[in-house]
Amino acid sequence: MADPIQKLILELARLPGIGERSAARLAYYIVKASRSQGSSLARDLAGALVQVADSIGLCHQCQNFCTGGKCSICNDARRDARALCVVEGVGDLRAIEHSGAFRGRYHVLHGALAPLDGIGPAELRLDEMVERVVADGYDEVIVATNNNVEGDATALYISRLLAERGIRVTRLATGMPMGGELEYMDQATVGRALQERRDIAS
Amino acid sequence: MADPIQKLILELARLPGIGERSAARLAYYIVKASRSQGSSLARDLAGALVQVADSIGLCHQCQNFCTGGKCSICNDARRDARALCVVEGVGDLRAIEHSGAFRGRYHVLHGALAPLDGIGPAELRLDEMVERVVADGYDEVIVATNNNVEGDATALYISRLLAERGIRVTRLATGMPMGGELEYMDQATVGRALQERRDIAS
Repeated sequence: MADPIQKLILELARLPGIGERSAARLAYYIVKASRSQGSSLARDLAGALVQVADSIGLCHQCQNFCTGGKCSICNDARRDARALCVVEGVGDLRAIEHSGAFRGRYHVLHGALAPLDGIGPAELRLDEMVERVVADGYDEVIVATNNNVEGDATALYISRLLAERGIRVTRLATGMPMGGELEYMDQATVGRALQERRDIAS
Repeated sequence: MADPIQKLILELARLPGIGERSAARLAYYIVKASRSQGSSLARDLAGALVQVADSIGLCHQCQNFCTGGKCSICNDARRDARALCVVEGVGDLRAIEHSGAFRGRYHVLHGALAPLDGIGPAELRLDEMVERVVADGYDEVIVATNNNVEGDATALYISRLLAERGIRVTRLATGMPMGGELEYMDQATVGRALQERRDIAS
């Protein structure tokens, strides 16, 4: 029989950002916890994993992860049905939800345009996204893709598709992060923050 | 029904060194993997967790984690039966095994002396450790506890218990780590490395 701890270490090391050393540390913590009275860490975590594997699908409307056919955000009638926020992944959706600054709906692309990796508009199903925007009558589409080459290309592509249909397309502001110190900021960010400087309301 | 992804995030965040943000990143990775054809990450990890919870006990001889009553190291007749290495945890045992520099046997304390936290010699079952050392006739006990207050106290306590029985007790050397740069080393390490300097064999 293979060593169960070694097996757990190998499985944990498949997770992103977890190397063999971290995996070993986590595994020993889990073993220790599972041996102490009243702790159910290993079984609880195993249960949560199986439940996720069993029950998570994609919302047929916005492609968010969900357990039914439609996610809780799409099901929420109080959300603003005029603004749609397009994100690369569900983690991005979560970040925007946590900011509390957006009350509209989402569309998750599950990726960004990367022609060299074989990810084009068809893979992201951008046509279906545009159909949804037009059919549901959104006034504004906020393209919240990442600030990198793929995210920029995706935002530009989407804005071209939608602008010809007369829909306002915006992007998240680029600049100094809140609490960021100028001295330690990378030069690209400082450059963009300068370019996109704003008048101070007096 | 509670959101399975949220539940998985909460369970992952119970692991040491994994905050809510890392837990979310891992959870989304797992969900994404579990939705792609042919990936069994979530189920494999769950299976490894359950197997660990079901099967791992302590070696009745050295207190290492194991699946039978006796661990593979204690079962290995080729190991040197004259040298015993005492460690705080199984992770420490693993680190020493990986170094390849020790071929003796181990004793895992599962902790270090910390009177303020209620961990005394009885909690670490040091008497049983001493009994084992005497009964099995070890010549040398290498106390490989950590280089901190608890580890030092534990090493000192063990050395007093064993010295009176005429058994050689040693500790790991303290000094500059391999590849360490003097300029970036903390002053305590530099101080100890100076104190414990060695003559260069010529």
